[in-house]
Amino acid sequence: MLAGGVGAARFLRGLCRLLEPERLTVVVNTGDDETFFGLHVSPDLDTITYTLAGVAHRRRGWGVRADSFHCLRALSRFYPETWFRLGDRDLATHIFRTHQLRQGRSLTEVTKQVAARFGLRQRILPMSDDPVRTFVRTDRHGWLPFQAYLVRERARGRVVGIEFRGLEHARCAPGVLEAIEAADAVLLPPSNPLVSIGPILALPDVRSLLRSRRNRVAAISPIVGGHPIKGPAHRMLAGLGHEVSPVGVARLYADFASVFVVDSQDTASVHSIAGLGLKPVVANTVMSTVARSEALAARVLEELRV
Amino acid sequence: MLAGGVGAARFLRGLCRLLEPERLTVVVNTGDDETFFGLHVSPDLDTITYTLAGVAHRRRGWGVRADSFHCLRALSRFYPETWFRLGDRDLATHIFRTHQLRQGRSLTEVTKQVAARFGLRQRILPMSDDPVRTFVRTDRHGWLPFQAYLVRERARGRVVGIEFRGLEHARCAPGVLEAIEAADAVLLPPSNPLVSIGPILALPDVRSLLRSRRNRVAAISPIVGGHPIKGPAHRMLAGLGHEVSPVGVARLYADFASVFVVDSQDTASVHSIAGLGLKPVVANTVMSTVARSEALAARVLEELRV
Repeated sequence: MLAGGVGAARFLRGLCRLLEPERLTVVVNTGDDETFFGLHVSPDLDTITYTLAGVAHRRRGWGVRADSFHCLRALSRFYPETWFRLGDRDLATHIFRTHQLRQGRSLTEVTKQVAARFGLRQRILPMSDDPVRTFVRTDRHGWLPFQAYLVRERARGRVVGIEFRGLEHARCAPGVLEAIEAADAVLLPPSNPLVSIGPILALPDVRSLLRSRRNRVAAISPIVGGHPIKGPAHRMLAGLGHEVSPVGVARLYADFASVFVVDSQDTASVHSIAGLGLKPVVANTVMSTVARSEALAARVLEELRV
Repeated sequence: MLAGGVGAARFLRGLCRLLEPERLTVVVNTGDDETFFGLHVSPDLDTITYTLAGVAHRRRGWGVRADSFHCLRALSRFYPETWFRLGDRDLATHIFRTHQLRQGRSLTEVTKQVAARFGLRQRILPMSDDPVRTFVRTDRHGWLPFQAYLVRERARGRVVGIEFRGLEHARCAPGVLEAIEAADAVLLPPSNPLVSIGPILALPDVRSLLRSRRNRVAAISPIVGGHPIKGPAHRMLAGLGHEVSPVGVARLYADFASVFVVDSQDTASVHSIAGLGLKPVVANTVMSTVARSEALAARVLEELRV
């Protein structure tokens, strides 16, 4: 699975029930990573880890369940900006990650250690050990780092640009291409195609490798009934000239995916998706319960004959 | 005031009530500093800051009052040793300090910033910006960093050595010698003479400067009735061949202090102290209340005619 944050986590809650843990590798976007208070925070990696460990906050889609914010409140004495909500339990992960990185370990190694300490047997890989940082440009704020755009500015403003800084020097993390190469299925959950999946696809060799494995790649539309379930994907798609619809997303994936799942609200898009050379699959993609998430995952795997 | 941790904090609670904040400079031992989880912790500096800010834990002598330990518990997932009790609110200080130091600020600058963010007008100076680390050797554990000896091993074992590593390359922090030079009074609170006051005295020029200001220097015995009020000073004194008594401590200070305060339980020592060339003063030195701490501070200042 290629993963961003919330949509990926929702899908994963069901998917992980269907697979032996050793069969699952999650390649995670690190374009949203940010440094807060000198600590290296990897929101998407943590969301995936916490989700698999069963400690994720269910409703919010970030952080640890039942966390407290005493340290963050105390940090507000020293820092003018504490809009990124780092809980006390969550902070332990960032402190550990930062400590390990400073000792010269790679993000891949640290991510593996974190997963192991949470008792996970699934493999979680950062997309890259090199720093890639997503910046978003809006008509209101100019260029902003992703978290400042999403969290501090609450994704306000018209998106007029997206950039992955550092991409020109970045390679895939060890194991990423091998995992895609060896996979029975490569799944793209209903994540933001531009900023969650986009950075992974932009890394060297990923897209061409996926193309060569096209019949094993399936994606799920993050746009349902004209809107994303969560987040600003519609504003980003629209701002960059894409159609805000399942078809608009399908176009972004058509060169390397063979199956594209749309919600039962979007049956009208089936014909256009088929026209892109993708097999359209209609399913209930709104994963309001773990059972629904599991049913969706089962449907996708079945479609790829896994 | 030259300061270590708990004894200094107790005395300071009274002293700061008597002085305009701008008149007070506290020069603080940093030999107890330690790195935990990649964070730079300065226990004595923080105890002094928290005490002056009124947020210190009263009974314990370390940390922030009413703190919680959620992050530390979460850190225990990643680290085998979490015996140094860092609370959630306390951690904010260490995260900020570490972040600032990594950006190239000196410990003096960071300490000033921390004090300012706590609204303090008193001046708190680390004894040095250079790393000096106190190691304690016991017959049970060999050489241990100070916190491992004190907290992890609970000061067990016979002390057979004390060493200030890094001292050979350390200078006083900016302002330390100037503060001693300009002071109307230099006060040594009832702190451990070997590991709390000792590292400060061992820095270049401190002892000789104090000698030249001898008539302004007063010390308070940390040994009362044959024991320290808190901590392992008796074991350290005994282990290194010093007498475990006010006289034993007075001997360590006799070359640069003119006044030595003993508890009313220790009137028997008055004659020997006078014999060392120190003026003995008898007072209630057990600071079980702030009022008693204030009375003691007033008595010492009076003796030095401040």
